Amino acid sequence: MNPKIVVNGVGTVGKRVAHAVRKQDDMDLVGIADVSPSSTLKTVLEEDGPLHGTPLYASVPDKVEELEEGGFYVEGDLPGLLDTGQVDLVVDCTPSGVDEKNKEMYKEKQVKAIFQGGADASIAPVSFNALANYDEAKEEDFVRVVSCNTTSLSRTLWSLNTNFGVEKAVGSLVRRGGDPMQDSRGPINSIVPVTEIPSHHGPDVQEVMPELDITTLAVKVPTTISHLHMVNVDLGKEVSREDVLKIFRETPRVKLFSAQEGYDSTAKIIEKFRDKRLRYDMPEVAVWEETVETEGKRLYWIHQVHQESIIVPENIDAIRSMFGTAEREESVHKTNENLGIE
Amino acid sequence: MNPKIVVNGVGTVGKRVAHAVRKQDDMDLVGIADVSPSSTLKTVLEEDGPLHGTPLYASVPDKVEELEEGGFYVEGDLPGLLDTGQVDLVVDCTPSGVDEKNKEMYKEKQVKAIFQGGADASIAPVSFNALANYDEAKEEDFVRVVSCNTTSLSRTLWSLNTNFGVEKAVGSLVRRGGDPMQDSRGPINSIVPVTEIPSHHGPDVQEVMPELDITTLAVKVPTTISHLHMVNVDLGKEVSREDVLKIFRETPRVKLFSAQEGYDSTAKIIEKFRDKRLRYDMPEVAVWEETVETEGKRLYWIHQVHQESIIVPENIDAIRSMFGTAEREESVHKTNENLGIE
Amino acid sequence: MNPKIVVNGVGTVGKRVAHAVRKQDDMDLVGIADVSPSSTLKTVLEEDGPLHGTPLYASVPDKVEELEEGGFYVEGDLPGLLDTGQVDLVVDCTPSGVDEKNKEMYKEKQVKAIFQGGADASIAPVSFNALANYDEAKEEDFVRVVSCNTTSLSRTLWSLNTNFGVEKAVGSLVRRGGDPMQDSRGPINSIVPVTEIPSHHGPDVQEVMPELDITTLAVKVPTTISHLHMVNVDLGKEVSREDVLKIFRETPRVKLFSAQEGYDSTAKIIEKFRDKRLRYDMPEVAVWEETVETEGKRLYWIHQVHQESIIVPENIDAIRSMFGTAEREESVHKTNENLGIE
Amino acid sequence: MNPKIVVNGVGTVGKRVAHAVRKQDDMDLVGIADVSPSSTLKTVLEEDGPLHGTPLYASVPDKVEELEEGGFYVEGDLPGLLDTGQVDLVVDCTPSGVDEKNKEMYKEKQVKAIFQGGADASIAPVSFNALANYDEAKEEDFVRVVSCNTTSLSRTLWSLNTNFGVEKAVGSLVRRGGDPMQDSRGPINSIVPVTEIPSHHGPDVQEVMPELDITTLAVKVPTTISHLHMVNVDLGKEVSREDVLKIFRETPRVKLFSAQEGYDSTAKIIEKFRDKRLRYDMPEVAVWEETVETEGKRLYWIHQVHQESIIVPENIDAIRSMFGTAEREESVHKTNENLGIE
Repeated sequence: MNPKIVVNGVGTVGKRVAHAVRKQDDMDLVGIADVSPSSTLKTVLEEDGPLHGTPLYASVPDKVEELEEGGFYVEGDLPGLLDTGQVDLVVDCTPSGVDEKNKEMYKEKQVKAIFQGGADASIAPVSFNALANYDEAKEEDFVRVVSCNTTSLSRTLWSLNTNFGVEKAVGSLVRRGGDPMQDSRGPINSIVPVTEIPSHHGPDVQEVMPELDITTLAVKVPTTISHLHMVNVDLGKEVSREDVLKIFRETPRVKLFSAQEGYDSTAKIIEKFRDKRLRYDMPEVAVWEETVETEGKRLYWIHQVHQESIIVPENIDAIRSMFGTAEREESVHKTNENLGIE
Repeated sequence: MNPKIVVNGVGTVGKRVAHAVRKQDDMDLVGIADVSPSSTLKTVLEEDGPLHGTPLYASVPDKVEELEEGGFYVEGDLPGLLDTGQVDLVVDCTPSGVDEKNKEMYKEKQVKAIFQGGADASIAPVSFNALANYDEAKEEDFVRVVSCNTTSLSRTLWSLNTNFGVEKAVGSLVRRGGDPMQDSRGPINSIVPVTEIPSHHGPDVQEVMPELDITTLAVKVPTTISHLHMVNVDLGKEVSREDVLKIFRETPRVKLFSAQEGYDSTAKIIEKFRDKRLRYDMPEVAVWEETVETEGKRLYWIHQVHQESIIVPENIDAIRSMFGTAEREESVHKTNENLGIE
Repeated sequence: MNPKIVVNGVGTVGKRVAHAVRKQDDMDLVGIADVSPSSTLKTVLEEDGPLHGTPLYASVPDKVEELEEGGFYVEGDLPGLLDTGQVDLVVDCTPSGVDEKNKEMYKEKQVKAIFQGGADASIAPVSFNALANYDEAKEEDFVRVVSCNTTSLSRTLWSLNTNFGVEKAVGSLVRRGGDPMQDSRGPINSIVPVTEIPSHHGPDVQEVMPELDITTLAVKVPTTISHLHMVNVDLGKEVSREDVLKIFRETPRVKLFSAQEGYDSTAKIIEKFRDKRLRYDMPEVAVWEETVETEGKRLYWIHQVHQESIIVPENIDAIRSMFGTAEREESVHKTNENLGIE
Repeated sequence: MNPKIVVNGVGTVGKRVAHAVRKQDDMDLVGIADVSPSSTLKTVLEEDGPLHGTPLYASVPDKVEELEEGGFYVEGDLPGLLDTGQVDLVVDCTPSGVDEKNKEMYKEKQVKAIFQGGADASIAPVSFNALANYDEAKEEDFVRVVSCNTTSLSRTLWSLNTNFGVEKAVGSLVRRGGDPMQDSRGPINSIVPVTEIPSHHGPDVQEVMPELDITTLAVKVPTTISHLHMVNVDLGKEVSREDVLKIFRETPRVKLFSAQEGYDSTAKIIEKFRDKRLRYDMPEVAVWEETVETEGKRLYWIHQVHQESIIVPENIDAIRSMFGTAEREESVHKTNENLGIE
């Protein structure tokens, strides 16, 4: 019998994860939960919306009324639903801080839960990336899927480490100011550095791969559509750029783009997915082929991260690992197939 | 027998119009044509692309080779195709200037053609908007679909003029710097006024509705996703804001959005369509409900224009009008149905 | 004897007003006051800063220590200073809300005060613009200098009204997201309309000129350096554009710029003042000459507003009016001379 | 007798260098030259402009008339001026490509010349940075002052190399899209990587310090006010962050800023200089103090580069070196004093 899944918190991440769960045949989305009648909730539940027909619950009992007044049909509240024993796992996509409190409820109600990278690593025994540590989530009750930037570094560095060894990695991150809808956030015409080195991304990668020596620096710039990373890595041995390109081509959820073919900016790559996928989701790490360059054991490259969607397939794989319903390779392949990921 | 359509020029407009033609059952897309192996062309023709399977032609004979070297299967060249008599109409979406030259070829090959609003009004006897002057395109060989901003003003003003009379309209346009992919275009951190008053938009509306008294001012700002108009109109009689809201609700391709429901910026409205439509296309004029306000005979409102897609349904309707295959109301309704436009 | 002035709140406006007071010979800056050791405070008081040598006070007694710990020499606190009777007027440039509370103190200590446009109009019996209602501030204890956008409309419309009569004015405002330093503010890649019509600017102009019929619409865009207004006005009589240009040329603090001479954007005009004035201050309303256009009694134009500095000379003139130390024309002329305003 | 200097090309760099030459007492600005009556030229020569009174020449004879028609008093043309023997050196600030042609004229007229970093390194035998290779410009006829980003890296790396040895440096550069006035340039809402690694900046540093092992990566973002660099360096020995901070404090034209004191973005640092210097020029490299971090022999930091002004003092020092009128330390100190650089 398929694991029964609820997504709690229908925002940027929640709406995507719920949509992705619906596209799998070995898990069932039995409900979504939220606290207020947002435009996002309305959109996804409308007749032509990607979550149309999914039962809606109030995340907490005293929000039922507000949702109903907002014009929604509410099945009940999440704690009540969990009490019925008809839910096996909650993907918690609530804001940071709220997830901490929810965890206590999930524990009490004896359901598994997945948390997102905004939460502190301590929220779960495992910080998860499908390629790097799929097996560690097996049988766990609580798992944290690491955040977008960390996910991109985990995928690429895990692959390099496995194939060539990684002695030291340095990531220089150029972050977006906010997601497209977060238009109260800046900066406008300014660059804002994270003045703590390492930025939190490096230590977060180490939650996934504790043995990896990595340092990250980060700045925030006036863009909404993607993050970008400039990476340099000291490998365990001397390799050619062709060696690395081959490895990247074989790494799931890493995709090479050629500037010479017209993909010479974050906007140009996003445009490709506007023509193919709802919400122009790009869960793949987009590596600019021309930027993969080696100097002896030193490797350089630049990649793009679609902050809104990169963690979606990781959530799906985490579910399979936690229920033991598939091995890593099978799960990654299945998720990719179902989501149209290359 | 369905009219046979070719789209010449597969860029921002061309890729959308071709996709829209494919979604109609009373016209056939028999080919697309272009001059270079762009990333856009590649994307739309890939297996999961919206134009997969459409025969590709070189717009001019000496570009066949370049396209083939770019990895495309090329059926032939456009002039040759037109010579076969198997094409009834070309939707020309080539850059301004090129369309002028193409017109001579279409004339010679005796096919009808539709041009876009970037062309001078003199390129065709009719400047077209589906609501305002559908019948004028009937039986015509050459029609020009007016540009995005003009289309939004034509729809709203035609409807107001029909219902209440319009004595004078003033549009203050806040234009996007470039489309998302046009990332070499500015401005960054500057506002660039059109220092000629009226800007070309007012006279362009008058190509559609010659009797209308309208003046437009325009500036360019650092955004890529939409234009925005602040409009004030002197109506022929005193009306209430409810009267106007009713009319706007009934006008096809005009849609009201409420800031109070979360749609309080151009980004928030675009986000809605990210969740529903490929390329987040929004051919509707999005009017902020709260901004519709009257003072005696004076009316104010603010609306948003998705510059990339608003003219797509007008191209489809123009085809029907030119072949006499449907009356206005039927055509507008059919187009909207097929494209999922509200 | 010169009126003795204190500026309370040394931020974007306060630092400029204090600097401007220092440049006058008929009023004395006896101190500035603030609550925290900000980078702005540090900069302006450094040896090469524009306010070097000005005595610093804590705005409230319990902030003395924090300022001292921040490395500042603090003369005392503002209430204490006011008790000595050595201050005649406080220019209050504190955040909105704080100014309301401060007013009670100023009343109690029996000093005059000027408030800024962020405060509600009810904070003072007069909302002030130097050209439009200089005499109304005479002998008043409390005056409010209206905000940047309102000031630009008051200057231009007062001049037009005086010369030709204004029957109706409509302003379409394109506002900056935040000042250059306010880099946590958006929007990035979005346009945010004020969905209430009129926006507060129209009613605010009417605080200055109650008889004026004006409606304003406003949107916010991703820029930091200036606001921009597209204005259309129904005049009391038919005039030529040359008539209007002549009037604008003669209006103090209104300056014509020609796009043809290279001043074709807000950034290009600001660049001129980077080469001439500290902080590239531009207290003048910058009207694009080419945009001044008439249609019978209807007038159009576009102007730029430097939000940080336009209200600075108005504060100076308000001081003179409140102490009766100069008539309007003399004060405006004197202020302009001392500040290098054309 | 003071060397007589002409600045050819009065744009972003030329206007600043000419202004800086005027502030020195051991060199004389005898003229500026340009080809068209730009707004920049008008501004700097106006009565209150920084170059008021400087004789103006047409860069080429056939531009005299255009300048005169633009309302300028033209002394003559540059070739004619050079023929008189009254010029010792031309600082060429003309666009890349034009400078190449000008060099032939300078050679023929037997005057020395300084070129800017936009020119290919081959234009002059020496690519110059005041700290790193002042003596190499001695007695030379042609010198190239390296560009803004290269200058920032040369200063910091020279200092580190001299004190600790530099084994390998990697710079990840986040570049501005255009200068404030260049508002036709993008990107808007996109990040554009340089897809060649190394970007040209690394090799350009090696023109100054051939022995230095450096690789640079670069991207372009939507900002106009500054570049920003994230740097990591393998030093010749293990040092503490305090060691590095001490060295940076002692390095001329490198200045530490503390985010904790409010300087937490490029806009916040620029704001400081808006209050102090015309054009908010910041020829100093601004290093965020908190970002200076060490891991054994590895050093990290982030710095800001004001692209418009950082190379100004280098041009002045290059003049002194080329005429042998001062030794390095004296020249750097003198330039800094005269320009108010810390």
